[in-house]
Amino acid sequence: MKRSQLIELIRRKQSFLCVGLDSDINKIPQHLLCEPDPIFSFNKAIIDATLPYTIAYKPNLAFYESNGINGLISLKKTMDYLNGLKNECFTIADAKRGDIGNTSEQYAKAFLDPNGDFNFDSMTIAPYMGEDSVKPFTIYSDKWVILLALTSNKGASDFQFIEDQEGKPLFEKVLTKSQQWGNKDNLMFVCGATQATMFTRIRELAPENFLLVPGVGAQGGSLEEVSKYGMTKDCGIIVNSSRAIIFADQTSAFAQRAEEEAKKVQKEMSKYMQVYM
Amino acid sequence: MKRSQLIELIRRKQSFLCVGLDSDINKIPQHLLCEPDPIFSFNKAIIDATLPYTIAYKPNLAFYESNGINGLISLKKTMDYLNGLKNECFTIADAKRGDIGNTSEQYAKAFLDPNGDFNFDSMTIAPYMGEDSVKPFTIYSDKWVILLALTSNKGASDFQFIEDQEGKPLFEKVLTKSQQWGNKDNLMFVCGATQATMFTRIRELAPENFLLVPGVGAQGGSLEEVSKYGMTKDCGIIVNSSRAIIFADQTSAFAQRAEEEAKKVQKEMSKYMQVYM
Repeated sequence: MKRSQLIELIRRKQSFLCVGLDSDINKIPQHLLCEPDPIFSFNKAIIDATLPYTIAYKPNLAFYESNGINGLISLKKTMDYLNGLKNECFTIADAKRGDIGNTSEQYAKAFLDPNGDFNFDSMTIAPYMGEDSVKPFTIYSDKWVILLALTSNKGASDFQFIEDQEGKPLFEKVLTKSQQWGNKDNLMFVCGATQATMFTRIRELAPENFLLVPGVGAQGGSLEEVSKYGMTKDCGIIVNSSRAIIFADQTSAFAQRAEEEAKKVQKEMSKYMQVYM
Repeated sequence: MKRSQLIELIRRKQSFLCVGLDSDINKIPQHLLCEPDPIFSFNKAIIDATLPYTIAYKPNLAFYESNGINGLISLKKTMDYLNGLKNECFTIADAKRGDIGNTSEQYAKAFLDPNGDFNFDSMTIAPYMGEDSVKPFTIYSDKWVILLALTSNKGASDFQFIEDQEGKPLFEKVLTKSQQWGNKDNLMFVCGATQATMFTRIRELAPENFLLVPGVGAQGGSLEEVSKYGMTKDCGIIVNSSRAIIFADQTSAFAQRAEEEAKKVQKEMSKYMQVYM
């Protein structure tokens, strides 16, 4: 998906909500376990219910890989379904890959290649191994790298805030250095919402790149603060919510409750788009 | 596999060679392409030929994932085969995963759980997200985290050598900080061989942890230097070679040539074990 299409999608749906498909087999409603593919049945119901309010879906690969080959089959079915919804959503492989150049090429092929089993629009990448680990993900046209910069977990403080001899924290080095490897049309950054006041600084360093923002909802970030400090004239932010939407309810009403939650978030997002875009 | 078993294996085979199963479908011998599962046929032949000289196998997950579901089936068959060779080899999922705590738990389950599809002894992990992204991989008994510290690729210089305000490079911070999360019985480090003189410093910081050393062979590192500067009384190093062994020949003699290459490396390793252990 091109940047212009993504922006059009956001404007049309008045939403910048990404629903994280962290579809844990132990947390989906019990009655789905008798379906032939419970995870796919769950995902399809969640997608159908939330699509009017959602501009992106982000399967978290760990929750598929933890079910082995069957989990990957559920993921493929989910992606076939999402890819059938042309221009209705952007897709993110939350994979956090990154390896030496020839290996990153293979990961890019695995998840971004239009002829592969998954054909995502984008994938999350870890920056530790530097340029040759990131660049292979930029070669597919209209596909995106989403590079980890500032994450929303407790362990983020272990390395991401280490300051260099000029006082610059590591995550800022990632934000600036990586802009030599991609541009606003193929490079986004993961920036956690638990640090919303830092978005001012992030926008100085990456004024136009889209930011994928986890940590709103279950992890406690504020949607208004993220919008206030992170939004650009093109919106420029995609805010992820996983558990707060997909596991809002664990009975047979799960999809309806997910819809209500997504609708509520979209309504709030629409308001911030009027104010801050 | 316990540390004591790994050391016993190394002493018995007089080898610290890991064969990297970067089994690229485009590089395996053409005649295998008519087999029902060419990648598994290739891996099995390589394993059978190199096992006497090899103490570890390291499937590089990217080369399986890039073939989609079928690739993962080839990986499962390979792991079933390796897990049948009790105490003959240590297995490494070269996965470079790492995510927030609840997600890392799922990745650990995917690759380390004895009841899962793969049941590796260890897996490679990226450190960028810190403690909660790493610790879930340490909870399975007799299983190992292999944390990226100093990698062997060009991009390693982008972030890993950034010095903090006390002059300590990032990779040293990773080596020291992470020793609060694991110990010599469940934590190894990836340390690239293209920087062999740095092994002296690495050993000051991590005197007892095993090091997984890529970059010997195709990437140009020196086996003698790595042994000289990196070896401990328990050996303490596992040196990986991928392309130089598995693609030594691309005709029907590929397995025999792989055997010859592995044997040659083992012979050299045996010599260094006499001198430096």
